[in-house]
Amino acid sequence: MAGQNLVIDYTGVLADAVGPVHGLSVGEIARAMPAVRALIARIEKQRRSGQLATDTAPWPHAYRELPTDKTLLSAVQKAVRRHRGTVDNLVVLGIGGSALGTIALQTALNRPLHNLFPAGKRRGPRLFVMDNIDPVEFADLLDCLRAQLRRTLFNVISKSGETAETFAQFLVVRELLLARLGRQALARHLVVTTDPRSGPLRELAAAEGYDTLPVPPAVGGRFSVLSPVGLFPAAMCGIRVERLLAGAAYMSRRVALTSVRKNPAAMLALLLHAFYVRGKRLHVMMPYSYQLKDLADWYRQLWAESLGKGQDLEGRKVAVGPTPIRALGVTDQHSQVQLYREGPNDKVFIFLEVDKFAADVPIPRGTKIPQSCQYLQGASLGKLLSAEKRATEYALVAAQRPCLTIHFPRVDEHTVGQFIMLWEAVTTLMGGLLNVNPYDQPGVQMGKDFTYALMGRPGYAKQLEEYRRFARARRRYRV
Amino acid sequence: MAGQNLVIDYTGVLADAVGPVHGLSVGEIARAMPAVRALIARIEKQRRSGQLATDTAPWPHAYRELPTDKTLLSAVQKAVRRHRGTVDNLVVLGIGGSALGTIALQTALNRPLHNLFPAGKRRGPRLFVMDNIDPVEFADLLDCLRAQLRRTLFNVISKSGETAETFAQFLVVRELLLARLGRQALARHLVVTTDPRSGPLRELAAAEGYDTLPVPPAVGGRFSVLSPVGLFPAAMCGIRVERLLAGAAYMSRRVALTSVRKNPAAMLALLLHAFYVRGKRLHVMMPYSYQLKDLADWYRQLWAESLGKGQDLEGRKVAVGPTPIRALGVTDQHSQVQLYREGPNDKVFIFLEVDKFAADVPIPRGTKIPQSCQYLQGASLGKLLSAEKRATEYALVAAQRPCLTIHFPRVDEHTVGQFIMLWEAVTTLMGGLLNVNPYDQPGVQMGKDFTYALMGRPGYAKQLEEYRRFARARRRYRV
Repeated sequence: MAGQNLVIDYTGVLADAVGPVHGLSVGEIARAMPAVRALIARIEKQRRSGQLATDTAPWPHAYRELPTDKTLLSAVQKAVRRHRGTVDNLVVLGIGGSALGTIALQTALNRPLHNLFPAGKRRGPRLFVMDNIDPVEFADLLDCLRAQLRRTLFNVISKSGETAETFAQFLVVRELLLARLGRQALARHLVVTTDPRSGPLRELAAAEGYDTLPVPPAVGGRFSVLSPVGLFPAAMCGIRVERLLAGAAYMSRRVALTSVRKNPAAMLALLLHAFYVRGKRLHVMMPYSYQLKDLADWYRQLWAESLGKGQDLEGRKVAVGPTPIRALGVTDQHSQVQLYREGPNDKVFIFLEVDKFAADVPIPRGTKIPQSCQYLQGASLGKLLSAEKRATEYALVAAQRPCLTIHFPRVDEHTVGQFIMLWEAVTTLMGGLLNVNPYDQPGVQMGKDFTYALMGRPGYAKQLEEYRRFARARRRYRV
Repeated sequence: MAGQNLVIDYTGVLADAVGPVHGLSVGEIARAMPAVRALIARIEKQRRSGQLATDTAPWPHAYRELPTDKTLLSAVQKAVRRHRGTVDNLVVLGIGGSALGTIALQTALNRPLHNLFPAGKRRGPRLFVMDNIDPVEFADLLDCLRAQLRRTLFNVISKSGETAETFAQFLVVRELLLARLGRQALARHLVVTTDPRSGPLRELAAAEGYDTLPVPPAVGGRFSVLSPVGLFPAAMCGIRVERLLAGAAYMSRRVALTSVRKNPAAMLALLLHAFYVRGKRLHVMMPYSYQLKDLADWYRQLWAESLGKGQDLEGRKVAVGPTPIRALGVTDQHSQVQLYREGPNDKVFIFLEVDKFAADVPIPRGTKIPQSCQYLQGASLGKLLSAEKRATEYALVAAQRPCLTIHFPRVDEHTVGQFIMLWEAVTTLMGGLLNVNPYDQPGVQMGKDFTYALMGRPGYAKQLEEYRRFARARRRYRV
């Protein structure tokens, strides 16, 4: 499948390009390979297949089996067949791993102004992903949908079934449906994606008869986009999920290769780890493509939550983790590149470049314009975008800033599926190299406990007292 | 005006809150004050008023005079009166400083789903800010507007009048207008915001009779949101620009105070500089408000491009500059907070908190739901959002991560105007403390030169040869 697959170009991280102080030599890269090879072999041994939808015991790297799980896919297809014909608006209620993948797929694979076009000019319903609880934003959405409630489906997504933000949104929407359309409408307007067996949403769905889809217990939220979490909204909106899964399955085979030179995940993990050790701990992902911009945001969660850890695999206290940064070409050339080129040399740049855009816009010739702008005439926006990417990359390289490029031959379901599996696999490898567990997130519990305390949930009096001691000081330090 | 103004709360950066290793003592803060006071006195002395719209000699801190410049405001009001009644779509063609302020004002001050509502339910035309040249995105916009071209106004914004991206977009749009509506339509459908005297856009506007607005030569792009650059699109969309300017003027008076304890810009610059010196060089701005999210993106340009510098005021080679990071509460609790709390302690957190939201959404009572979620019933989304902000802040403080909060009593034109002037003034002060020029951006020139080379502009053969030498290596380092 030459010419249809992602290609990593790492010329711009080498000492030949950015000098020996900031670049890596070919020899250094070769010396780092055996450790990565051993890690890959260990990971492939740890993998096992299982019934993803119902196997309650988690196992490592379970996300790798999602692309070939036919049970999950057919559950999604069944739900899509049931709802697709009756829906003009699809509202996803979910946050974090329950939202970022869906947003990324929609931006990458449907038209940019999808929601503004009439039904005949888009591939599926309008899509609203509500991944926040801002009351101004949520009230506006409800106002927008008020007259169209009969043609609106709500997909409530929470693995545990009790995510505070999602459950709160769900209670609001359920009440609205009850008040406006009556109890028997609930089952028609709600699809709940949650744990296959337990949790508050599962209980309510059983009691009130909503459609449900399973979130595989073995797969963590930020690795779940290729499960019903991401597949159902994508398929509802006309995205060809079989092609997406085929691209991911193809990449799952590539990332199993123990040869680092043939395995893009292995090479990326090797390079990014080498730079992390050298003190370049800010990883900037900069797509030169509107369609790829939200994949960079999806990556941002994957990278931060999986690798930012306070404890290593032996339980020792540490404070590790690269900070992912999302940028956008060419827009951020006019915002961030001054800092990137001249500020502290503490970043690695990961460009995403599209070799062939789905559309291009010619820049017309023939107008009499001032000489300084004539070079634009007869080119196209795509050509200008591509020239700016290469020029910006080179300007960074010339300033000794290491740069990588991931080439998309084109943006379609197959390459996007590859990209998702690629970065999930890089994350697993990077966790191994940093000696941390990429699948947990113990650092978010304390914020949840204090939220419960401030919301008056029983059992959190101690936290409430502790918070109040801090808050008492607040009045004094104000400007 | 107590209760209507921004308030900075810095309790969470003090050693009492985050410990002596990561926090600042009250004594340290007091000892840093004289240097900041002296800087403020010098800045206030350097300020001078002038004819902003036509004075071609730049002078330092000219942005401070924008809120009280009646000539600029009346030029904007005149243009708005001429166009407002005939427009359903306003398209801004601009990038960087010509776009980020407009996006931020629109998100902050109009309804979140503005573009999806019919004309009677929004305060002005639909707004499209095209700050990129992605061909897929641009082609989609043209397709969306095709049938409505007669009711569409294009505001082309470029201070120099020759920004490559904006000029390319302009050529495309001009050709479309010519082809569809004829030559006499250009003047009705184009408003050009550019240098008052020179540049390619100015020349073409004069030759073909478009409406124009001036970008004050003394004000740099990233400080220009309160000039016609930001005011015209805002006023077209129904934003009360006089109130915005009044808020900014009020803050301009506050940031002139030499007492650090009364001057929020002085206190912010002092604290952020102290943390920069201590190695906390990542500044995370995290609004807990949909409306404020794009103000954080506007800040991101201001901070990076003004402070990321390779040369100090004496011309010595340096590599300084904090890296600004935009986050969003509560969404990023489920994406970044794991890293923020447990990863490297190299960040300062700047929360934006809204004390009273323009709308709230009650979470209904009375449904029989599982016990673990009952604490939500009877609360509201606004209450939950606010509890999560305080809980997350406290969880970070407990992990010894310094946190600041900027309180918005409410989000309206006056507080948003304050916020803009506040951060522009903080940026000036921070430039002084870091000993760099916050008003230039020499680091972006090389990327432009290599773009010209790759686009075949005459005079760039040397750069083209240099680029090709680099590109030849590319084939070898691919996976």
